[in-house]
Amino acid sequence: MVAHLGSELVKILVTGAAGMIGRKLCERLAKEGAGELILHDIVTAGPGSLVSDFSAAGEAEKLIASRPDIIFHLAAIVSGEAEADFDKGYRINLDGTRRLFDAIRKAGGGATAYRPRVVFASSIAVFGAPFPDAIGDEFVNAPLTSYGTQKTICELLLSDYSRKGFFDGVGIRLPTICVRPGKPNLAASGFFSGIIREPLAGQEAVLPVPETVRHWFASPRAAVGFLLHAARMDTAKLGARRSLSMPGISATVGEEIEALRRVAGEKVTKLIRRQPDPAIIRIVDGWPRNFDARRAASLGFRADASFDDIIRFHLEDERIPVPRSGSA
Amino acid sequence: MVAHLGSELVKILVTGAAGMIGRKLCERLAKEGAGELILHDIVTAGPGSLVSDFSAAGEAEKLIASRPDIIFHLAAIVSGEAEADFDKGYRINLDGTRRLFDAIRKAGGGATAYRPRVVFASSIAVFGAPFPDAIGDEFVNAPLTSYGTQKTICELLLSDYSRKGFFDGVGIRLPTICVRPGKPNLAASGFFSGIIREPLAGQEAVLPVPETVRHWFASPRAAVGFLLHAARMDTAKLGARRSLSMPGISATVGEEIEALRRVAGEKVTKLIRRQPDPAIIRIVDGWPRNFDARRAASLGFRADASFDDIIRFHLEDERIPVPRSGSA
Repeated sequence: MVAHLGSELVKILVTGAAGMIGRKLCERLAKEGAGELILHDIVTAGPGSLVSDFSAAGEAEKLIASRPDIIFHLAAIVSGEAEADFDKGYRINLDGTRRLFDAIRKAGGGATAYRPRVVFASSIAVFGAPFPDAIGDEFVNAPLTSYGTQKTICELLLSDYSRKGFFDGVGIRLPTICVRPGKPNLAASGFFSGIIREPLAGQEAVLPVPETVRHWFASPRAAVGFLLHAARMDTAKLGARRSLSMPGISATVGEEIEALRRVAGEKVTKLIRRQPDPAIIRIVDGWPRNFDARRAASLGFRADASFDDIIRFHLEDERIPVPRSGSA
Repeated sequence: MVAHLGSELVKILVTGAAGMIGRKLCERLAKEGAGELILHDIVTAGPGSLVSDFSAAGEAEKLIASRPDIIFHLAAIVSGEAEADFDKGYRINLDGTRRLFDAIRKAGGGATAYRPRVVFASSIAVFGAPFPDAIGDEFVNAPLTSYGTQKTICELLLSDYSRKGFFDGVGIRLPTICVRPGKPNLAASGFFSGIIREPLAGQEAVLPVPETVRHWFASPRAAVGFLLHAARMDTAKLGARRSLSMPGISATVGEEIEALRRVAGEKVTKLIRRQPDPAIIRIVDGWPRNFDARRAASLGFRADASFDDIIRFHLEDERIPVPRSGSA
């Protein structure tokens, strides 16, 4: 994906490399022989990876010491934790990112020019209700969580640091990733993946909201594609607004279930158990449902084609046998 | 303006009290006997005022020590300085404000509840071109300066800290203040006031942009009115979006000059000398021209009635005799 710069191999730093998207991105970069990978996380992301708290004083400088040409900044604590632990959320998601940005800025202040591409993983949590029918590229960022606030602030820093020429930043607001592989977790959004993933594994899944609930999705494969495109796109076309809402699939829970039926058969969908949870219904009610991601589309970012594809990519990428009753 | 709380006098802290708006606000508060005033600035704001760099460690805590009921946070370094000195801009305008907000948060964490009203002076610099014909309440905050970035970030913190119940915040985005009293300064926006103020004082003023340039104005008197209203309004009506674009007067430079002619006569307007400055023309081209400040209007914020009034308020408030040829 990434062109080699002159005779030297491109250096690529990935923070949050042990996370779900981080792992998939690194696998893809390694497979493509994209360059020399520097993996970082708070826990090990594999042999030779760097392990540290990047928000601690001096740590960001170490990550930047080798002057990576491309930096994928994925590291963050998740929404629920940022909401529960106010100080930790601001320390990791805001101060940590700012330390990283400042380390890059200061590395560029010396004798040799240093102006890497910085790809920042943002989130649709930068938006808060009330919403229009589809959230356009000029809609206000009015987050309703500390996590969304922190992501919005980092987007603003990304634009300002890019404008000043300290680095060349692109922020991408990822839709909710679906189907998220692995075990069920306690995130309020977990059921969007759970009602696909568990039934495909022959297990029961709980659906805590009505089928009319609409949300905005991208497959892990599409998300990795967004990150790679952000790393190689021509940023001259971006202008001053450095962050973009990614294209995605707007689907209701009912449409998710219909797609599951088409891909894997009626029997699989029987494993979804309706058990309304007022707390989750209330939380989800404040989340974005649909976007008009025109700018990102015009800049070459490509969404999944359908929710059916989102399910098929899950089966392919996680090497899950298609249930016998399925038609995929 | 501010009701007395029980038997105790309300305590009011004003940061940036030595600034132009700060001084006018404090005069008005003193005149109304609004409460016990605590004035603060980096330079003296009068006898008994507190002098410190509020962005230095431990200083915000001192300002909050007496637990003011109402905090007007006006302190900031201006746009030009924040652009010229990146570190200083972020230190004062972002970190300083965050330290103040955190000092309030931590003061409230003890045995007694403490949840003051915080009125934050923001700016239309939170918006950046390209703009719609009139900037509405849901238009994206995409600043094009470090100052605008810092103000936007503080708005986001204000909303998040208010949502968490740490204080009760209202952010008000002030239009360009006109007529700014005092001496001409080197700010790129200086001419908007200069072409009124200098001719009214019998002096020549330079106009560096075409008469077609449109901008968004409020008188110092209206700005003080916004601050007072923000301190006493019912914030339950604000919802989660704690910052508001203030209403104002959208006027072209030509309309400014017409108003000056109506108020002070033809002869005064002859003191305006056209001398186009490409650098200033370019800067001003990125600035907001017009707003649809519906939300603020519905919440009771009131703009000046006309640009003629803006000039009349200047003559009244600065005790300037109306030129003999005038019709005011």
